[in-house]
Amino acid sequence: MSAALSLLGKLPGLTSIEALIESRFASDAPLITEISAYLLTLGGKRIRPMLAILCGQLCGLKAPFENTREGKQLIDIAAGIELIHMATLLHDDIIDRSPLRRHKASPLVVFGSENTLLAGDFLLTRAFGLCARLDRYVIERTEEACVALTEGEILEVSLVKQVHTLESSLTIAKKKTAALFRLAGETASHIASTSELTTKYLGDFGEQLGIAFQILDDILDVTSTEDVLGKKSGQDLRERKPSIVNVLWLASENPMADRLRTPAVSSSDASAAEIAAEEAWVAESLKELGASSVILEARSLAEKYVAGAEEALVAAEANSATPFEKGSRKVLRGLMDYVLERVK
Amino acid sequence: MSAALSLLGKLPGLTSIEALIESRFASDAPLITEISAYLLTLGGKRIRPMLAILCGQLCGLKAPFENTREGKQLIDIAAGIELIHMATLLHDDIIDRSPLRRHKASPLVVFGSENTLLAGDFLLTRAFGLCARLDRYVIERTEEACVALTEGEILEVSLVKQVHTLESSLTIAKKKTAALFRLAGETASHIASTSELTTKYLGDFGEQLGIAFQILDDILDVTSTEDVLGKKSGQDLRERKPSIVNVLWLASENPMADRLRTPAVSSSDASAAEIAAEEAWVAESLKELGASSVILEARSLAEKYVAGAEEALVAAEANSATPFEKGSRKVLRGLMDYVLERVK
Repeated sequence: MSAALSLLGKLPGLTSIEALIESRFASDAPLITEISAYLLTLGGKRIRPMLAILCGQLCGLKAPFENTREGKQLIDIAAGIELIHMATLLHDDIIDRSPLRRHKASPLVVFGSENTLLAGDFLLTRAFGLCARLDRYVIERTEEACVALTEGEILEVSLVKQVHTLESSLTIAKKKTAALFRLAGETASHIASTSELTTKYLGDFGEQLGIAFQILDDILDVTSTEDVLGKKSGQDLRERKPSIVNVLWLASENPMADRLRTPAVSSSDASAAEIAAEEAWVAESLKELGASSVILEARSLAEKYVAGAEEALVAAEANSATPFEKGSRKVLRGLMDYVLERVK
Repeated sequence: MSAALSLLGKLPGLTSIEALIESRFASDAPLITEISAYLLTLGGKRIRPMLAILCGQLCGLKAPFENTREGKQLIDIAAGIELIHMATLLHDDIIDRSPLRRHKASPLVVFGSENTLLAGDFLLTRAFGLCARLDRYVIERTEEACVALTEGEILEVSLVKQVHTLESSLTIAKKKTAALFRLAGETASHIASTSELTTKYLGDFGEQLGIAFQILDDILDVTSTEDVLGKKSGQDLRERKPSIVNVLWLASENPMADRLRTPAVSSSDASAAEIAAEEAWVAESLKELGASSVILEARSLAEKYVAGAEEALVAAEANSATPFEKGSRKVLRGLMDYVLERVK
């Protein structure tokens, strides 16, 4: 772990963001509060709020954020973005029928799909309520990001039903993951009242970093283990997802990958023999892929996007009236390293 | 049909609202646009936008609304409220596993639960984007209404799992249905810049009318037919819902009602005999209930709420600097009659 990365956990504002998020769970329906609180206790990387804080600091916003109007707005938007992310986690678990999240039973398993769906709607509403406290720019960007999230998810049709390419897979990553990273970068910059161009480039920075983050997600699904991930590995294979790794593997014309174009094996409908055959294929594929050039290719793609993020950052600073604050620039570099180095 | 009611379809602004709603379906994911457009073509009463228009007119906003700033805001909020309603229809269909909506296959059946869920998220986002164009008051009320919608749905736990009373059933109606009626009344009044008290009372007016509207929904589920409703009748019985009719029936201590406290019969898990027994009970119950005092009781409750709405309207006018516009007052009376007279 780089020295800069160890600073991340100590970022100012994180405690206030966590408290603000929790305060937004208030509801007349105790079950809604319970589901939201359960999801929060499962933890998370909080990378989106961190990104918002760091971009705000780059542009001159100073801790303690709780003492200034702009600082409070930064806390609001950072909490709002994390709440949107939490809402999508609840709905994604329903779509993916995920039994586990961070080593624990998923909210879906604990509370059922109906309650999980409604709690997701609740969190999305609470998030929007926070983001809408700001100005029209923030509201419009928030809407755009949330629209992109749903588009990314709905475009993520399985490889069985639709032909996917590296391009379509990257479009999905941009929408379903990088949209909130972009939102963090551009709204933080906007709140700090930097130039329009700096705001645009900090948005680009977030987007490029977000795509790299998603590529690593896809890689870790193959190279990591349940012990580390806190959920089963190989899920993108089982679900025939158009992940970056899967589309690259298909493009490599490895015959083992062909099974990605056959329907997923449903654990409720399939025979024991079918499930065993599927699991054998997943295990073999994980071994094959782990040692293959596909992972190297995906990694180098992720590195390319992080390099693109760095370029956007340089352009953002070049268009800023004042130079970026050096301390947060260093921590941000640690965050960028982390995106490539992370193991879960 | 009353003469005033026939004027409803000709309300100014409705065409603009419909066009604005449709314009908000724009998406990079064609499927999202398709699902939204499908839901729109199924039609609907558009009672929430009508309510917003009429309350705006009461308070002095004049057609054509497209020509003034306040008029455009009224169109925005009316469209936003209908979009929120549409989003909840998509998610409710998933929760209720509804096969039919307005005589046609429900979006759930046509597009599947995952796509329907995501399209609901999309519409909720688009709705909030519209409502957030207005000021902080509107944003906060919109958030509150959307929170109430999810709370109402999550509190609507089946009679099997929880004891419900008339009071809890009315709380659910207030939250899941009347919250958007309230929002229509209070935001329209707010846009017209009437007094705070008038705005409060027009909110109360909407809420009371919304509760009456939900009571009629519960009544029609028992007294109407699939031909008229466009979906199976008796669904609240089958699903053991804490509808107003069901809680009143249970309170009447009719032994036939006891079955409401037994688990619902799932069409996928139950035997043919179990399904036949359930359907026989539903048919018998519909007959029994249709001729019972329960329906009369529910009707008189609905009338009480419409009378309460009328009182709130009088209080709203008494607190307004200028008297309410007479034409729209008359049409609004038609709308109130319609809530009690409607057959579907």
